[in-house]
Amino acid sequence: MSFDLKWSPSEKKVARRAFDAALEVALGKTMAELKSKVSGVTTPAAMWDIEDYLRQQRLKIDRMFDYRYSQLIVVFAVLIREGYLDENQLSGLSEDKRNEIHRILAWRASE
Amino acid sequence: MSFDLKWSPSEKKVARRAFDAALEVALGKTMAELKSKVSGVTTPAAMWDIEDYLRQQRLKIDRMFDYRYSQLIVVFAVLIREGYLDENQLSGLSEDKRNEIHRILAWRASE
Repeated sequence: MSFDLKWSPSEKKVARRAFDAALEVALGKTMAELKSKVSGVTTPAAMWDIEDYLRQQRLKIDRMFDYRYSQLIVVFAVLIREGYLDENQLSGLSEDKRNEIHRILAWRASE
Repeated sequence: MSFDLKWSPSEKKVARRAFDAALEVALGKTMAELKSKVSGVTTPAAMWDIEDYLRQQRLKIDRMFDYRYSQLIVVFAVLIREGYLDENQLSGLSEDKRNEIHRILAWRASE
């Protein structure tokens, strides 16, 4: 279980950097999507939909970016699947951690 | 009191037309302001502020546009003050109604 994995200081650095980079990508994508959506708004209903869109994106990002070492393996798998993180940004992590991320990705992909 | 005023069929038509036109102006101004705000967004914090801005605008417009004949005199005064309605759009209303709107505007202006 990922709860039991130990994180060395250098792995923590790699994890933090990858996490922060993925967050930046997620926020940047949301910002670009917001601008595109709003520029296409022509009706009041579409305007109010932007409020819902932003709330959902905020909650999604809040839930997804959970920096607890007990959660980080699953979090990284989700970030890779969502396209916010590239696997090679995790190259400083131990093999057991990267294998576990692979297992989660393979398992999710087969759903 | 405006609660006691009687509205003739032709006054109701004038009122409805003025109300709908003011709502269209309010929504159009909000839409233009939203587009301008979003095009200037460069940070995540500013992006999430858009959600609050939209919620506040939605609540403000919901509260302001109250089409009950018992409220309509006050509503029209507020819409004129906010710049959503021009007084001459109410020219089919009786003199007592227009005087009451003036009184409210004068009273609010002196606050």
